Amino acid sequence: MSKKVMAINSGSSSLKFKLYEMPEEIVIMEGNIDRIGKDNAVFEYRYQEKKEKLVQSIADHEAAVQLVLDTLISKKIIASYDEIAGVGHRISNGGQYYSDATLINEDVEKRIDELSVLSPLHNPVNLIGIKAFIADLPHAKEVAVFDTAFHHTMPTVNQYYGIPYQYYQEGIRRYGFHGPSHEYIALKTAELYPEASQRVISCHIGNGASITAIKDGKSIANSMGFTPLSGLIMGTRSGDIDPQVIPYLEQQKGMSAQAVKDMLNHKSGLLGLSGISNDVRDLTKIAQDKSDSRQQRASLALKVFAHQIQFYIGAYAAELNGVDSIVFTAGVGEHSALVRQLACQNLGYLGVKIDDEKNKVNALSIETDDSTAKVLIIPTDEEIIIARDVMRVAKL
Amino acid sequence: MSKKVMAINSGSSSLKFKLYEMPEEIVIMEGNIDRIGKDNAVFEYRYQEKKEKLVQSIADHEAAVQLVLDTLISKKIIASYDEIAGVGHRISNGGQYYSDATLINEDVEKRIDELSVLSPLHNPVNLIGIKAFIADLPHAKEVAVFDTAFHHTMPTVNQYYGIPYQYYQEGIRRYGFHGPSHEYIALKTAELYPEASQRVISCHIGNGASITAIKDGKSIANSMGFTPLSGLIMGTRSGDIDPQVIPYLEQQKGMSAQAVKDMLNHKSGLLGLSGISNDVRDLTKIAQDKSDSRQQRASLALKVFAHQIQFYIGAYAAELNGVDSIVFTAGVGEHSALVRQLACQNLGYLGVKIDDEKNKVNALSIETDDSTAKVLIIPTDEEIIIARDVMRVAKL
Repeated sequence: MSKKVMAINSGSSSLKFKLYEMPEEIVIMEGNIDRIGKDNAVFEYRYQEKKEKLVQSIADHEAAVQLVLDTLISKKIIASYDEIAGVGHRISNGGQYYSDATLINEDVEKRIDELSVLSPLHNPVNLIGIKAFIADLPHAKEVAVFDTAFHHTMPTVNQYYGIPYQYYQEGIRRYGFHGPSHEYIALKTAELYPEASQRVISCHIGNGASITAIKDGKSIANSMGFTPLSGLIMGTRSGDIDPQVIPYLEQQKGMSAQAVKDMLNHKSGLLGLSGISNDVRDLTKIAQDKSDSRQQRASLALKVFAHQIQFYIGAYAAELNGVDSIVFTAGVGEHSALVRQLACQNLGYLGVKIDDEKNKVNALSIETDDSTAKVLIIPTDEEIIIARDVMRVAKL
Repeated sequence: MSKKVMAINSGSSSLKFKLYEMPEEIVIMEGNIDRIGKDNAVFEYRYQEKKEKLVQSIADHEAAVQLVLDTLISKKIIASYDEIAGVGHRISNGGQYYSDATLINEDVEKRIDELSVLSPLHNPVNLIGIKAFIADLPHAKEVAVFDTAFHHTMPTVNQYYGIPYQYYQEGIRRYGFHGPSHEYIALKTAELYPEASQRVISCHIGNGASITAIKDGKSIANSMGFTPLSGLIMGTRSGDIDPQVIPYLEQQKGMSAQAVKDMLNHKSGLLGLSGISNDVRDLTKIAQDKSDSRQQRASLALKVFAHQIQFYIGAYAAELNGVDSIVFTAGVGEHSALVRQLACQNLGYLGVKIDDEKNKVNALSIETDDSTAKVLIIPTDEEIIIARDVMRVAKL
C-alpha cells in the first residue's frame, strides 16, 4: 500500500519540504518557508500544478511546521495528520557515528545535539525541525538522513588530516558532505549509463559546492572535509586556503577567531573575490560586459572558481585511476555553461571533450562523439534520497 | 676568467655553504654549521676529498661566517677574502616583489626585512647571513635568490585564494616555494630527456615537501602557497587542512593562535600522524615490522603522505593536460622506494607505470618500458642554481 512520506530540510530561518506518495515517488506537494522568525515570512508551495504564496508572521520553526501541516489539511492533500507515515530529516553532520540514515529516538536526538559542536550552524536547527514534527506527528516514523553518511565508505587515507593523531580520535577528520546529492548522482548515472558508471566524478556546484570521487557507486573521496567550508571556493565560502593565513590574520591584523570564521564562511568565495556577488548568473553577465568597470573582477572570480573544479577533477581522476563520467549538478552545475566549459577545458588528456552547442543548452550528455568519457548534466534530487531512506530504514 | 662564488643557506641555528669555481661549476669546498648559539656547535666540511669536523662554541651567525672564512684561508682554499667574487643567499620569501634573483643593496635588505612578516622563521635569519657576509666581504657581490621567484610565472588563477580581494592586495596570495630546487629539476629534465620535458611534475619530497607543475620549463602551480606550511603533509607540517579546524581548536579547545601555529608547523605531518617520527626511514622500518606495536600507525602515516603526493600529481596532470615526466627529488623523493611506489600506484590512466626493480635501486629512470610517461629520480641541487644566479645577476 502507498504511504505518504515527507522529506524535510531545515535551515536557520527556513524550512523546505516535499511530500511524496511512496514507493511510487510521486511528489504530492512541495514548498518552502523563508524568513522564519520575521513578520514577513514567505511560504511558497506547489501542488497539482498550482503555485501559491503566502506572506505572514511566522514566529519559529514550530509555527512553520504547524503551518505546513495545516496547509496540507486545508488544501485537502491529507485528511488527517495520521496519513503521514514517515518524515525524513536532512541532518548536516552525523560525524563518525552514522554510516547510514537512522530511525530517530532519544539517543539519536542526543547525538545530533552533541554533534552541534562540529556543525553549529546546521545541527541545532535540524534538531528543532525534528522536535516540531515529533510533537505534531507522534505516530509518524522520523528518520535522520545525514549529509556525511554516504562518505563513510572513504578509505582510511582520505579520512585523516596531517595533524596529531589525537585530533582524529577527537573527531577532527574528513567527513565529506552533500551525501544525498552525490548518492543520487551515483544512482542516476548508473541507471542512465551503466557502462560509464564505474568511475564517476560528481560535481555538486551550487552556492555550496563539493566534488566526490565515486567508485562502483561508493564515495571514496569528497572535497569537503571536517566542515562544509573546505575544498572548492563557493558562493561565499573560501574553500581550502593555506592554514597559516588564519593565525596570520589573528596575529597581524588582530582579528578574532570568530571574525575569521565569519569572513571565511560569509564574505569569501565568489563574493569576496569579485566584490560583487555570490551568484554565478550575476557574475557571468558582468564578466561578458566590457563596458562594465567590474568586468575584470567578475571574470577573475569565475575563472578561479572553475579552475578549482578542474583541480579536483584532476585529483579525483588519480583517485579513480581515470574517469568514465564527469557529472555536473546543482544550481551552477546544471545551468552555467561557462563554468562547465572553463572547468573542462584542460581535460583532453582524460579523453574529456565538451561539445559547445550541447553545453550551451544544458543537454543531458554534453561530450563530443569522440570523447572517451561522458560529461553529464543531471539535476540532483536530494529529497527523493531522503524519502527512500525513510521507506527503507523505517520499514514502511 | 674563473670566479669563486659562494652559495649560502642560513637557517635559524644553521649555516650551509658551497664554494664554487664558476662558470665551471666545480665545488671547491662545502660544509655546514649546526647549533649556532650553543657551546657545542658543529662545523662539518668537505674539500679535496677530505672530510673534517669541529665542535666548538659559536656565538652567532657573524661568528659562524667568520669561522667559515677563516677555515677557507687556513686550509689554503683561498689566499685572501678578496678572491670571493660573489655570494648568493637563499631567501625564503620574496613576496610579490621579486620574480628573479637580485643584487642586494640597502633597499633589497629593507624589503627582505619587511617580508619577515610573511616568513618570520626564515627571512630574519636570511638577513643576518647577508649582513655578516657584507661586513666581512665588502668587495664581493651579494645576491638574493628567492624561494618564491621561480613561481612568478604562475597564471593568475593559481595565485588567488577564495578570500576577499583586499587580502590579495595585502599580500595574502599563493607564492609557492622550493623555487631553486624545482628550477633545477626543470632544467635537468630538459637536459636529460628533452622529448619528455614539456609537461613535468616535479615532486620535491624532503622533510619539507612541495610539488610543482612545470610547463615548458616554467612553473604554473606549486602545492605550497602563502607559506611553506600548505599543500602536502610533511615531516612535521600539516599541509592543507579544513581552515575551520583552526577556529574550532581555538574556540572549543581554548588554544591560542600561536599554539595552533606551533602545532601545525612542528607537531603535525608524519610525526603527528604516526606519533613516532618525522623521518620516512624510521617509519618505513617500523611499518615493515609486524612485531612492532607501532606498525599500524607508522604505516598509516606513510600511506596518507604518499596518497597526498598522488592527489597533487593528479591535480597537476589536469593543470598540464597530461604529463611527460614525473620527477622525484630531495631526501625522501630520491631514496624512498616505498613512498614513490605508493604515490604512483594508481596512475595507470596517465600512462605511468613503475618498474619495481628499478624503483628499488633508485635508478635515474624507473618507469617500465611500456609506460608512456617517464618517472625519474634526479638528485636536486639548489646551490648550483644559486651560484648560477650570482654569476648572471652580478654579471661576473
